Amino acid sequence: MHPVNPPARLLMGPGPITADPRVLRALSTPLVGQYDPWMTSAMNDTQELYRGVFGTANEATVLVDGTSRAGIEAVLVSLLAPGDRVLVPVFGRFGHLLAEIAGRAGAEVHTIETAWGQVFTPTAIEDAIVRVRPKVLAIVQGDTSTTMNQPLDELGAICERHGVLFYTDATATVGGNPLEVDAWGIDAVSAGLQKCLGGPSGSAPVTVSPRATAVLDERRSVEAGIREPGDDVADEPIRSNYLDLAMILDYWGPRRLNHHTEAASMLYAANECARILLDEGVEQAIARHELAGRAMLQGVQALGLGVFGDVAHKMHNVVAVEIPSDVVGDQVRASMLDDHGIEIGTSFGPLHGKVWRIGTMGYNARKDTVVTTLAALEHALRRAGHAVPHGGGVDAALDLYRDSTVSGAPVGVPA
Amino acid sequence: MHPVNPPARLLMGPGPITADPRVLRALSTPLVGQYDPWMTSAMNDTQELYRGVFGTANEATVLVDGTSRAGIEAVLVSLLAPGDRVLVPVFGRFGHLLAEIAGRAGAEVHTIETAWGQVFTPTAIEDAIVRVRPKVLAIVQGDTSTTMNQPLDELGAICERHGVLFYTDATATVGGNPLEVDAWGIDAVSAGLQKCLGGPSGSAPVTVSPRATAVLDERRSVEAGIREPGDDVADEPIRSNYLDLAMILDYWGPRRLNHHTEAASMLYAANECARILLDEGVEQAIARHELAGRAMLQGVQALGLGVFGDVAHKMHNVVAVEIPSDVVGDQVRASMLDDHGIEIGTSFGPLHGKVWRIGTMGYNARKDTVVTTLAALEHALRRAGHAVPHGGGVDAALDLYRDSTVSGAPVGVPA
Repeated sequence: MHPVNPPARLLMGPGPITADPRVLRALSTPLVGQYDPWMTSAMNDTQELYRGVFGTANEATVLVDGTSRAGIEAVLVSLLAPGDRVLVPVFGRFGHLLAEIAGRAGAEVHTIETAWGQVFTPTAIEDAIVRVRPKVLAIVQGDTSTTMNQPLDELGAICERHGVLFYTDATATVGGNPLEVDAWGIDAVSAGLQKCLGGPSGSAPVTVSPRATAVLDERRSVEAGIREPGDDVADEPIRSNYLDLAMILDYWGPRRLNHHTEAASMLYAANECARILLDEGVEQAIARHELAGRAMLQGVQALGLGVFGDVAHKMHNVVAVEIPSDVVGDQVRASMLDDHGIEIGTSFGPLHGKVWRIGTMGYNARKDTVVTTLAALEHALRRAGHAVPHGGGVDAALDLYRDSTVSGAPVGVPA
Repeated sequence: MHPVNPPARLLMGPGPITADPRVLRALSTPLVGQYDPWMTSAMNDTQELYRGVFGTANEATVLVDGTSRAGIEAVLVSLLAPGDRVLVPVFGRFGHLLAEIAGRAGAEVHTIETAWGQVFTPTAIEDAIVRVRPKVLAIVQGDTSTTMNQPLDELGAICERHGVLFYTDATATVGGNPLEVDAWGIDAVSAGLQKCLGGPSGSAPVTVSPRATAVLDERRSVEAGIREPGDDVADEPIRSNYLDLAMILDYWGPRRLNHHTEAASMLYAANECARILLDEGVEQAIARHELAGRAMLQGVQALGLGVFGDVAHKMHNVVAVEIPSDVVGDQVRASMLDDHGIEIGTSFGPLHGKVWRIGTMGYNARKDTVVTTLAALEHALRRAGHAVPHGGGVDAALDLYRDSTVSGAPVGVPA
């Protein structure tokens, strides 16, 4: 058996995407012990970097050692005691996931749904809050299954008015779309590295407001084996040990109470993702994603392809392209992968077989990746027998980049 | 803010230890998509490698995307429904952890305890099984808090006799001490990379027998959002989504049902850890750990230091060294770290302040690391005011290596 040696791939799906080489290099940094003064200092630095990423002053800003889904479950199982009511507005697959995870945590789950390709109005959410009276509002910001970006900026005030904790999963959006945790009054956010942050899956940055931390404080239960006299012991502890945010915060906080053994390599990656983003500047990174997303959108439209959903509310970093009726979607995807080395995404549930999802995010929110993908798509469609305008997609994208003042590449990457 | 740049450290504590440079390089391998044919093939290869590591034919051999603790919780929350009885023999901190995790999963937890530094007889465990009649026996193989290695080879037959599922956590032992999953009749094993496998924390190899898989099959509940007609839906699903082993097996299995986004970088690391181990040969790797552990044991004894616990039952890869009464343990540890760049471990609970834990495992189960650590310890002790024989530890270790036919370094590393 030889060491892993993957084929060269340009990952232009809904994530994971091609990681920034700087993040890959950070992954191979040598290990140090988890209580080494350098390591605890690196953990503190990483917390501070993610405060910048999230736009928050929350002390409780940490990494959960798992994929984005681990971050979601850590927030929900830690905030929701069995029987607590949670409201989940569902506008795609990941809304269903939040509901599922909350249900497994024993919460009383209430959902409202809107059609795939749409988002909710603040009024619709407030009406449901008034009716359900939940402890927590749980909603994804961006749902890659539909490409929609739910506006969150008015929800914090609504939640505050009704005494509701406001949680969002920003895995698909953070770093490529506006997210202002403190300004928008969000109490808890979970994320991942594998989308606009340009890293690998496997680390989930999480931030929690003082108001939500107070809920965690009430549920804290220090585990047997390291408990000291006077430590909290709950009659009904949080249902998970690994994803107990109160204990994770004690591990990252000044007490440094032993919990898991920090996944140092993923910490290094998370640190580098945030460092690169803040070096570029969050606003500039968002502008770069907006430009790449618009170029891809106009490019596929110039190829004569339709686009799914309420485009005014789509995320910058992913577009759902309608599969022409005269081609088989998976054959074109296979041609993109096998002949061009480019991955684009398939779809879930009601959109399965109907749209491709093409991502422009993180390290791959660049002019050359957009253009390369559009050129390949043009050729793959034509070889599949679907007529497309010669060069239309590439020209539309290049014209847009030519007329823009925004950089076509991440900071430190030649544009 | 600069990229992470840790100080040079030789990690000779109870883990994590210095990772093999080949594993660090594997971490920086470029990403591919999670359903790329190459990726699913790499996942299959990794499963096969871990069957070799564990000594099993179990089809259900996968990685859980989290630290070792995530693997423990995945097994316990998935096998134990609320109210199920579990027996946990506790001989150190990690026994308490298994009990804690099982309790949070809603199980009825029964423990038996033995003094720190001792292991259980098979008879003591069988007596408790007869009394408790548990669904699951959950026991750690090696508990780094005490350095003890619980003999497991007779427990499988006992469990089979009484219709009990036999689960062990082998994080501290696998790759450095005998572990024969099928031959010993073990139904579920969890592990981690950061000990004898020479990798970073953050991926938990798990294997599950057909008998235990049948229990998971009964509890399977495919999540809303990707569920198809005819799919299993449980009234009381496994309490965790992220750590639901039935769903994790569906993701790794032929259906490839979407669950988390595989942490590809950690998969690459896990793959490389196993590849290196099997290239060396499990028996040879265990012999190398046995030799390094004996050299460290005889070395500290030749420095006149006492060793804690029932040494006949200690793991090969870690020794608990009694701190002489005329030195302050943390001062000597600090001197080892600051002056020599070597990390040795402190201790938990009843052993806190009484012993140092010195590890010789994975990439660091080598002649040069043992000798370097003994030389540094000799100097650090002398500078702290404790009289030690000149060169005694180093000589004892080198004499042992000189007279041994076992390699003093991992395969592919100059001895």
